[in-house]
Amino acid sequence: MAEINVQEVDMDTIQAVYPLPLPPHFSEKNGILHIGNIPVTKLAEEFGTPLYVTDETRIEALYHEYIHALSSHYPNCRVLYAAKANGNISILRTLAALGAGADVFSAGELMLARDAGIRPEHLLFNGSSKTKEDHQLAVLHGVRVSLDSEDELYQLNRVAEEMGKTVEVSFRVNPAIHVPTHPKIATGLATSKFGIPAEQILSAYQKAHEASHVIPVGIHCHIGSQILELEPFAEEARVLMDIVSKLHDMGIKLKFVDLGGGLGVAYRHGVEQAPSIAAYAQATIPVCKETFKRLGISPEIWIEPGRSLVCDSTILLTRVNSVKHAHKRFINVDAGFHTLLRPAMYDAYQEVVVANRMDMDPNAGEVYSITGPICESGDILAADRRMGAVQAGDLIAVLDTGAYGYAMASQYNGRGRCAELLVKDGAVALIRRRESIEDLLSTMRRPIWQ
Amino acid sequence: MAEINVQEVDMDTIQAVYPLPLPPHFSEKNGILHIGNIPVTKLAEEFGTPLYVTDETRIEALYHEYIHALSSHYPNCRVLYAAKANGNISILRTLAALGAGADVFSAGELMLARDAGIRPEHLLFNGSSKTKEDHQLAVLHGVRVSLDSEDELYQLNRVAEEMGKTVEVSFRVNPAIHVPTHPKIATGLATSKFGIPAEQILSAYQKAHEASHVIPVGIHCHIGSQILELEPFAEEARVLMDIVSKLHDMGIKLKFVDLGGGLGVAYRHGVEQAPSIAAYAQATIPVCKETFKRLGISPEIWIEPGRSLVCDSTILLTRVNSVKHAHKRFINVDAGFHTLLRPAMYDAYQEVVVANRMDMDPNAGEVYSITGPICESGDILAADRRMGAVQAGDLIAVLDTGAYGYAMASQYNGRGRCAELLVKDGAVALIRRRESIEDLLSTMRRPIWQ
Repeated sequence: MAEINVQEVDMDTIQAVYPLPLPPHFSEKNGILHIGNIPVTKLAEEFGTPLYVTDETRIEALYHEYIHALSSHYPNCRVLYAAKANGNISILRTLAALGAGADVFSAGELMLARDAGIRPEHLLFNGSSKTKEDHQLAVLHGVRVSLDSEDELYQLNRVAEEMGKTVEVSFRVNPAIHVPTHPKIATGLATSKFGIPAEQILSAYQKAHEASHVIPVGIHCHIGSQILELEPFAEEARVLMDIVSKLHDMGIKLKFVDLGGGLGVAYRHGVEQAPSIAAYAQATIPVCKETFKRLGISPEIWIEPGRSLVCDSTILLTRVNSVKHAHKRFINVDAGFHTLLRPAMYDAYQEVVVANRMDMDPNAGEVYSITGPICESGDILAADRRMGAVQAGDLIAVLDTGAYGYAMASQYNGRGRCAELLVKDGAVALIRRRESIEDLLSTMRRPIWQ
Repeated sequence: MAEINVQEVDMDTIQAVYPLPLPPHFSEKNGILHIGNIPVTKLAEEFGTPLYVTDETRIEALYHEYIHALSSHYPNCRVLYAAKANGNISILRTLAALGAGADVFSAGELMLARDAGIRPEHLLFNGSSKTKEDHQLAVLHGVRVSLDSEDELYQLNRVAEEMGKTVEVSFRVNPAIHVPTHPKIATGLATSKFGIPAEQILSAYQKAHEASHVIPVGIHCHIGSQILELEPFAEEARVLMDIVSKLHDMGIKLKFVDLGGGLGVAYRHGVEQAPSIAAYAQATIPVCKETFKRLGISPEIWIEPGRSLVCDSTILLTRVNSVKHAHKRFINVDAGFHTLLRPAMYDAYQEVVVANRMDMDPNAGEVYSITGPICESGDILAADRRMGAVQAGDLIAVLDTGAYGYAMASQYNGRGRCAELLVKDGAVALIRRRESIEDLLSTMRRPIWQ
């Protein structure tokens, strides 16, 4: 699938903000970007490139910000980290140590979250397409399951019956909310594969209530990702509270109401704005609290942040292999969409800086596209950016790569995946080693006839 | 990155052709799809799902078709398999045994091709962003390098000089040809990251000619992928021959002319048409032959097919987990875009059949979307297809998944990658084992402070 998805110059993107506003775990000394007070040039030299580097203190700070914002409205809140955003078990351990739960989407995520020390009652097994083995694992570990269809309800009930256990569940509601986001993307959740339409949800709960080995104890919703407005979250809370009231009337006692995740981050520094965590809490929790008060109930409120918790903690360091002046100007680097898929898959914007020469004003430079080593024209990490005089050997940092970065990496084009580092207060740890050619071969087997 | 890219009903796609035209390595017995005379239900039971299954005889037949078509025009032709399409070393061995070379895009692909028994002189190291280690590896193995910029020319020359060796090279030409393909994709190769513009190419060859440790012996071009018309290939050959003539006048003696790959396949069976391999050869080789004759030269002609050689050899088997009637109808299966990225990334169309009930006429059924287990609304393998009455437990075969299938797979959502089988004349071999939860963890390391 070579040579596709050529991007034209986008005039919106070439006006660089200089110096780029950066979160507090970054600094600049002698023109070199530092993360957690460590010069990134040193990390790249020692561990090679491409290289993801995560500052653990940033994740901890944002987790505390969530807890503070939520509990200032309602004491009974819990953060379930969306493990899909970044599945490295060290990140899960960081959050487990702070008391976080996790939203898991597979048996693998469930096991990693358990291994990281997250208690089963703080997990929710989500997803619209689970296998019998997935259900067995949830029942075995006492992990609650978010059901996505009536078909799944009966499957899980049968599994629990076979195992002689009961299992607590929620249903995922499809609230049919129009979510404002990138034009390429969601036009309306009504057609999404996820969730049960609001008009079918009471019937589903009634069936769960009647099922022999399933106990409905929660309700779950998730309206999307990278949402930069608050109103959809408030609307979602209202839809959920309407259902919660009706379930209360049906005699169904809820232990938790899960609002899902979706709060976006400002990928364009100094241009975009994301709502604060406090504003998100203000938009959603009082809506729930009011209904709870009216009904005289006090279920836990769960939220499932992923991106907003881990995204800006992490940079991707990539080395410049060559610079080319053809019909356009290209900076060829060693990270491609096998390393970071978002730009190629979603036309996503990621900020880039020349990490070893932060003192170059990009506005004094030319317009370049930063391209990877993959065999496709669409392998562009950053299209049409104004950059200083970049040369082979320079080090580029792609910012805000902690969510859906390594998590979506592949070995495409026969390239082992890169390493990941965790830094904290000046300490550095390799939390994922770089893959070798042997790793490419490790699961392959030779046919007897070859 | 959950819940995006909702697809609306596409009325073009819901008219199912029944029975679906299939290549000769498939058959149907008692309503069950067979590949290489083996019932796919048996393979799914024994090896689990998701599961890629490749028929080796189909790849061999298509390779022979290429060789026959090319050599009927010109004796001095070679097929360099584009390893990026399917990098399993068993596939490389199949082609190596037939005498194929390989177009490699990384150190990993180079080493796998060598391990598979492909001789170094039958390899070309392609790509626009190579590292010093890539160059060293090519020089060490005596593999020719396709240079993509003048910057790269000087880098490679320096590496070869340091190693006290010379290295044979080609340049990749950017012919600025308008390639007709999917509207989402290429608008014109002029802006592609690949290749050197035709107006700069003679100067590049002159510099290579003057460089101390580099010998220009080839010319290389590649205009795109999944191209279903012949005229762009003919145009490409004309552009190349114009340059070949000028290089001849400059005294540069070419050992090979590499036309690249790009011949498409008909993903929509019975609806789309792809040019035959014979027609491709007819459109390109005579153009070259005429120039060669006029100049009195006889370089090898290389072509780099990937997709057209391996795509239809392979199916992806996936099990139905559940069926849901919400605002739309969904068939939830166990393969998602972590298994097969093309539909989610390129809006690519893949034919699907109910492999255990091939005798159901889809036109008697309803419109479903076949969706995977991944956390995104865009995780749709096949949108809006008319299907018979599919139930949980049924087996879906996604056709034409031999190219850019497993090659682009990831462990997204904490899911190990699936297994691959090779079948041949009734024999079955596991050529890649399924990944476990231990495989997810295998490269992770624990920070000392956690």
